[in-house]
Amino acid sequence: METVAEVGEFGLIERLHQVLEEEGRPPGLVLGIGDDAALLRPSAGVEWAVTCDVLLEGRHFLPQFLRGAALGRRATEVNLSDLAAMGAQPRYAFAALGLRGDTAAAEVVDWYRGFAESLRPWGACLAGGNMTRLEGAQFISLTLIGEVALGRALRRDGAHQGDAIMVTGYPGQAAAGLALLRRDGAAAGPLVDAHLAPRARVAEARALAAGGLLSAAIDLSDGLPGDLAHLCRASGVGARLWAERLPQSPALRAAGAALGQDPLDWVLGPSDDYELLLTCPQEKAAAVLDCATTWVKVPLRQIGVLDGEAGRLELVAADGSVRLLDPRGWDHFAA
Amino acid sequence: METVAEVGEFGLIERLHQVLEEEGRPPGLVLGIGDDAALLRPSAGVEWAVTCDVLLEGRHFLPQFLRGAALGRRATEVNLSDLAAMGAQPRYAFAALGLRGDTAAAEVVDWYRGFAESLRPWGACLAGGNMTRLEGAQFISLTLIGEVALGRALRRDGAHQGDAIMVTGYPGQAAAGLALLRRDGAAAGPLVDAHLAPRARVAEARALAAGGLLSAAIDLSDGLPGDLAHLCRASGVGARLWAERLPQSPALRAAGAALGQDPLDWVLGPSDDYELLLTCPQEKAAAVLDCATTWVKVPLRQIGVLDGEAGRLELVAADGSVRLLDPRGWDHFAA
Repeated sequence: METVAEVGEFGLIERLHQVLEEEGRPPGLVLGIGDDAALLRPSAGVEWAVTCDVLLEGRHFLPQFLRGAALGRRATEVNLSDLAAMGAQPRYAFAALGLRGDTAAAEVVDWYRGFAESLRPWGACLAGGNMTRLEGAQFISLTLIGEVALGRALRRDGAHQGDAIMVTGYPGQAAAGLALLRRDGAAAGPLVDAHLAPRARVAEARALAAGGLLSAAIDLSDGLPGDLAHLCRASGVGARLWAERLPQSPALRAAGAALGQDPLDWVLGPSDDYELLLTCPQEKAAAVLDCATTWVKVPLRQIGVLDGEAGRLELVAADGSVRLLDPRGWDHFAA
Repeated sequence: METVAEVGEFGLIERLHQVLEEEGRPPGLVLGIGDDAALLRPSAGVEWAVTCDVLLEGRHFLPQFLRGAALGRRATEVNLSDLAAMGAQPRYAFAALGLRGDTAAAEVVDWYRGFAESLRPWGACLAGGNMTRLEGAQFISLTLIGEVALGRALRRDGAHQGDAIMVTGYPGQAAAGLALLRRDGAAAGPLVDAHLAPRARVAEARALAAGGLLSAAIDLSDGLPGDLAHLCRASGVGARLWAERLPQSPALRAAGAALGQDPLDWVLGPSDDYELLLTCPQEKAAAVLDCATTWVKVPLRQIGVLDGEAGRLELVAADGSVRLLDPRGWDHFAA
């Protein structure tokens, strides 16, 4: 096995370059890796959305569970999810890697294969990057650039009082998957997949946004209350969620029964599901839900309304009782 | 002293947001930090250059020598230097940070002040980012986006046999400064500044490129032979350097005398000076040198010619003897 140290920085870059060459180059990419910077040619009439997110070994992934192409895909999908939440079409990615010298060069090449696999469906590509040698935990820092029609981006700050709150898929599944993995490292199934191999809702976001009915969007990486609170603060609104309407998949219920846990704790806890939280005027909710069911084929459900004091989150139980939700979400630095 | 852990991720983001708000927002930035992605609006008729570079604690900076705003400036300048080497005008920066919980929140705020200080002269700004908590060495991963007129970027692959090789300033000064610091942690002066506080040659690169006389460019981050080899390989040419013409500042000579070291070892060794290595057709060399002296006010000197077998680097001594230069440069991963 050749290590990163044996192959050397430029030897490794050469192998990664080969992975990218096999992928081909989209027309807007004038110059890819191999110069001081990549050269991109934006088209007129568009805005570009740019996002960056880091995956740190031991914190965001455990090498025994996630490595190689699967790790590369996950690193890409969590960034794609941010572009999805802007309604943007992914175009270019840039990777800054922190690598230990004894890491197998083939492992890093596999990360790149994973980047390419997740970018390929969108006609996007890895256009450049940087790597540095370190001793401790390795990291993958990706920067993604996406394109969106002028003025059509889905922002966090576009929501209004009275808007419907909707969510795709089944938030909480990733947290449940992590709980299953912690109990049994060999666990598998849809919940484990939700944690290890999330898929960004890029196509769904663009299809739902195309009608111009949505008022705001955010992706779920900090947990439903945390991300809803971000959206509420940005838009200056409060939110009321209906506990009965929060979606729970059969797999989530089964995991709750197996682990003796109320599935609602996962749905409302810190869970990085990379589902989309969307808002639209209440009178357009039926059209959006119909579009999701009929055309986009994505589970979408109204789970509440924007109402009340700015930044305040309420959960309404089946019996009509109301409790306050902790809006702090998943704070990565809180002691 | 409030630590990062005490302030929390979102508390820290709020403080960093204030630093950026004080800077203002350039017209092309539709939406800065606070959403899933930043929104940029490119102008027609331009290309965008994108680069990313990581600074790792203990490897690229030692906290006892470099911290706060000075560290933020350095992180920005090394990235600006890559944009300079493309002839691009800096526009937007994105920061991914890896932070220990016990780091002072004010220290990170000072990094941001440093980012802003280095971006401000170019009308550029920090437009977004990400942070993650870690236990080991901290890192700053910056992605910079610059703008260049369509087809006018300075690439590595544009040089031809017979072209003049030129360099700005005094390569090797950063390596000498590091040697001085290693001997005496309180050392100061132009060489120490070259190591701790390099300034990217952004204005110089754009002014020299404006005449359309240059054929290729690269910035010196891996050392003169290493980066010259990159340019040669990309352009499919060889190079011959004239030892007598390699610039040595009085400070560099003095440090050589003080440390008992041939200054040429620094000039031709691994030294991250962020000077520019430029090439142009030999018949245009006089015009380029004149432009540098008269208008740009930057030290620029022809140090050799592109000649010989592709990728081969030769050093011609004063007596006409020739020796081969090791083209490997500064390989960050070689064991």
